[in-house]
Amino acid sequence: MMTRKVVALLFCQLSTVNCQRTSVREHKMAATAASSDNLNDGLTLQMVRDSLIRQEDTIVFSLIERARFPLNSPAYDPSTPGFCGSLVEFFVKKTEAVQATAGRYENPEEHPFFPDNLPPSLVPHFKYPEVLHPAAMSININKVIWDMYFNKLLPLFVAPGDDGNYASTAASDLECLQVLSRRIHYGKLVAEVKFRNEQKDYEPPIRAQDRDALASLLTFADVEEAVKKRVAKKAMTFGQEVKLGDNGDKGKYKVDPAVVSGLYGDWVIPLTKEVEIEYLLRRLD
Amino acid sequence: MMTRKVVALLFCQLSTVNCQRTSVREHKMAATAASSDNLNDGLTLQMVRDSLIRQEDTIVFSLIERARFPLNSPAYDPSTPGFCGSLVEFFVKKTEAVQATAGRYENPEEHPFFPDNLPPSLVPHFKYPEVLHPAAMSININKVIWDMYFNKLLPLFVAPGDDGNYASTAASDLECLQVLSRRIHYGKLVAEVKFRNEQKDYEPPIRAQDRDALASLLTFADVEEAVKKRVAKKAMTFGQEVKLGDNGDKGKYKVDPAVVSGLYGDWVIPLTKEVEIEYLLRRLD
Repeated sequence: MMTRKVVALLFCQLSTVNCQRTSVREHKMAATAASSDNLNDGLTLQMVRDSLIRQEDTIVFSLIERARFPLNSPAYDPSTPGFCGSLVEFFVKKTEAVQATAGRYENPEEHPFFPDNLPPSLVPHFKYPEVLHPAAMSININKVIWDMYFNKLLPLFVAPGDDGNYASTAASDLECLQVLSRRIHYGKLVAEVKFRNEQKDYEPPIRAQDRDALASLLTFADVEEAVKKRVAKKAMTFGQEVKLGDNGDKGKYKVDPAVVSGLYGDWVIPLTKEVEIEYLLRRLD
Repeated sequence: MMTRKVVALLFCQLSTVNCQRTSVREHKMAATAASSDNLNDGLTLQMVRDSLIRQEDTIVFSLIERARFPLNSPAYDPSTPGFCGSLVEFFVKKTEAVQATAGRYENPEEHPFFPDNLPPSLVPHFKYPEVLHPAAMSININKVIWDMYFNKLLPLFVAPGDDGNYASTAASDLECLQVLSRRIHYGKLVAEVKFRNEQKDYEPPIRAQDRDALASLLTFADVEEAVKKRVAKKAMTFGQEVKLGDNGDKGKYKVDPAVVSGLYGDWVIPLTKEVEIEYLLRRLD
C-alpha cells in the first residue's frame, strides 16, 4: 500500500515546480510505488495520471474551438419557438440520444446531462474493465457542471456578438460540457486508486461519513498549483498563432491562459474532489 | 482588380519561406491590393485568408482528438445489427438531422454528408451574407471526402485496436469530416474572391469550360508548399506533450506532422482546387 504522500508525488511527477520532494525516503517510496503500480483489474496510478494529463489537452482544445464563435445568445434563449426550452438544451438532449443509441453511456466514464428517457444502446456489448464500486453509478453532478459552464465559465472566454452559427455553437458547447464532465467524473477513478493505495487512512473517515476529513486527505495544494500552471502553459502553447519562420505572436492567445488555470482552480479541481468524496462516502457500502 | 500573383502573395503573407517575392513592383501591388481589400458585400481577401489559416488549427486539433482512440473497426462494419449500414453512417445521419433542425445547413459554408431527407431548420432565420453565385448551392463533394477520410487518411494516424468507445470515436470522426468538408468547400469563397480580383483572366477559360486552364490559374506551388510546412508546424506545436519546466518531448507528437502535411498536399489542396474549378465553371451562368 502506498502512502498518500507517495500518491501525490506520483500525480505531480510530470511537474517540476512546487512539488515538495523533501526527503530521500519519499523518493525511495515513490520508486517502490511506481514499480508495484499494477493492480489485478488493470487500474493503475500511472494510467489514471496519464489520462488526467491527456484530458487537459482536450479541454483546452475544446475551449479554443468554442471561442471561434461569439456568445450567440439566441442559442440559450429558454423560449425559442419550436424547441422545448433553449436551442442548446434541445441540441444536447437530441445528440445525447443519438450517442446513447451508439453506446456512449455504456462506458462508466461517460455521464449524460439528460439521463432521463435515454434510448438503449444498439451496439454489441463491450466489456469495459469493472474497476469501480457499483455505487459509482449513482453519482452524476452534471447539473452543477451545466450551471458552471453556461453561467460562469462561458462569459469569461467568448466575445459578445451573434454570427448565426447556433448549431455549431451548440455542438462546441456540448463538446466542452462532455470533456469537462468526463474530467470531473474521473474523480471516481482517482478516488478508487487512492482508496486502494491508502485504505487504512481512508476507512475511518468513510465510516464516520466525515466529508471534511476526506477533503483534507484528498488535498495537496502543491500538486494543485502545478496542475493550474500546466494547463495555463497548454493554453499558451495550443492557443498561439503558429507561423512559419518565427515563434508566433507571443502574449496573444485564443483563450486567456488565466481563464484556463482559473477554470481548474475554481471548478475542475474542487468539483473533482466533490466527486471523489461522494464516491468514497459510498465505497464501503 | 488584383493580379493573381498579388492574390497569391496575400495568401502566403503569413509564410516567410518559399514565397517568391521577386520584385519591388510586386510588393507595391500587394500593398495596393491590401488597402483596397474591402468589397461591398463584406467578402475580403483578408477574411478568406484568416479563415483558412484558423481552420488549419481546427483540423489539427480534430485529428489529435481522433488519435486518442484506436481504429475501433466495429464502428465501420457495414452490417452492424440494429443499424442500416455501419454505426458511423447511422451516427452521422442522425447527428446531421439534429444539427439541421438547429439550423447548421442554413450557413452556406456548411455541407451535409447525407443531404437527402434532412429536416428543416427550426431556428429563426439568420441573414448570412450572400457573397456566392447561386450555383454554389449545387456543389457538394462530401462523398469524395468521406471516402478519402475513412479509406485513406484514417489508417495513417490511428493505432490499431478496439477500446469499445464507438460512439466517441464516431463523434470524433464526424468532427474531422465536418472540419475537412468546411475547409475544402471554402474553395467556393476562395474562387469567388479570386474571380472578382482577376475577372479578365478568369472569364476566357470559364467561357471555354477549360478545366486545365483554370487549374493552372489557381495553382501557386510556392504558396502550397508554405501551407504544407505551416500545418506540419501546427501538428508539432499542438501535438507535443506540454510539461512544466521544459519544452516537452521534442520529436514525439500525437499525430505525425508528415501525415498532416500529406493530408494537405494530397487531398485538402487538390480537393479545394476541385471545388474552386467546379464553382468557376458555373460562375458566369
